[in-house]
Amino acid sequence: MSEGSEVTLDSVKERTGGRSARVRQSVLDAARAELLEGGYGSMSHASVARRAGVDRATVYRRWPSKARLAMDSLVGLADNSVAFPDRGPVESDLREMATSVAKLLETPSISHLFQALIAAQAEDPSLREVGAGFWKERLEIGAHIVTAAVDRGEIDPVEDPAHVLEVMISPLYFRALISCQEIDQAFIDDSVDRAVAMLAFPG
Amino acid sequence: MSEGSEVTLDSVKERTGGRSARVRQSVLDAARAELLEGGYGSMSHASVARRAGVDRATVYRRWPSKARLAMDSLVGLADNSVAFPDRGPVESDLREMATSVAKLLETPSISHLFQALIAAQAEDPSLREVGAGFWKERLEIGAHIVTAAVDRGEIDPVEDPAHVLEVMISPLYFRALISCQEIDQAFIDDSVDRAVAMLAFPG
Repeated sequence: MSEGSEVTLDSVKERTGGRSARVRQSVLDAARAELLEGGYGSMSHASVARRAGVDRATVYRRWPSKARLAMDSLVGLADNSVAFPDRGPVESDLREMATSVAKLLETPSISHLFQALIAAQAEDPSLREVGAGFWKERLEIGAHIVTAAVDRGEIDPVEDPAHVLEVMISPLYFRALISCQEIDQAFIDDSVDRAVAMLAFPG
Repeated sequence: MSEGSEVTLDSVKERTGGRSARVRQSVLDAARAELLEGGYGSMSHASVARRAGVDRATVYRRWPSKARLAMDSLVGLADNSVAFPDRGPVESDLREMATSVAKLLETPSISHLFQALIAAQAEDPSLREVGAGFWKERLEIGAHIVTAAVDRGEIDPVEDPAHVLEVMISPLYFRALISCQEIDQAFIDDSVDRAVAMLAFPG
């Protein structure tokens, strides 16, 4: 009964646009909060509905797949937690970013989010495309550190600035999410050095 | 009723030692097969018990946690699928290994296994230690490519041969499991070149 009436209420919300968007946002916020708290394994349509204060049917109707729900909640994530400095010199900007990524990956709740991303992609291969887009964008934002250095005339133009970032952060993600090895400052510095070695300094 | 009798049967097996080990092995084999087929999300105590032909209670008693069951089934995995050549020259040995890893990571069932490893570690942080041990061993086996080259006198001694391997394979795992970007031969070659750049060739 309560399911039926909620669906009706929700249909009204859908017609009003703004409300529909608000429901969508509150479900995605709830999903992200669930992932942060307990990871992908403990998130469910029911737990998300409960947290968002909406009916389970509302969640199921819009996100029939849990993997898609998790992915949508993560892709919408405005990531202000990683520093993308562009003051120069480029080496210190890169070091600041790498240190910031390493610190972020040490946070258990953030590991939960990344693990959920990986799990959702593995569960539903059609989400790999969404994940690929998410990462392409993240790396391109990070690449700004390199292109800003080019613009300052500090380094020669770089063919693929996002790849420099990728080389720098891959070992950090590998240790944090896959091989579970400790990330110390020496390891961070080593990753930064390898990225810097890809750059050409004029003169 | 059937649960009770199976537990009894199993207790007898346990006393006989060899049978207990066989049950353990068949449960771990079944768990791995479940992971290969459907990934971590679809594996359960019930599905593993069904496949192994043992009672659910047997599985629960020995592996109360699903994360631990998944981890045990993966850590026991004899990995013969990656080539560890040591014929030299070291650069071609490394290239052969990297190509073999990239090919392996393209296999959906193998991605399922790695995803399960990541999910289990995220779900139960106490398993991070097991995962860390698993990876430490894998990287040390791979490091044989580098130490063999030192033994042949082809390169100078290397302080941390496993780290050379880590640098080479991190970007491959990052693309395959995390960022979902395509891995082409140019990307593999690039990763190999970066590992080779860590080596010192005498003369």
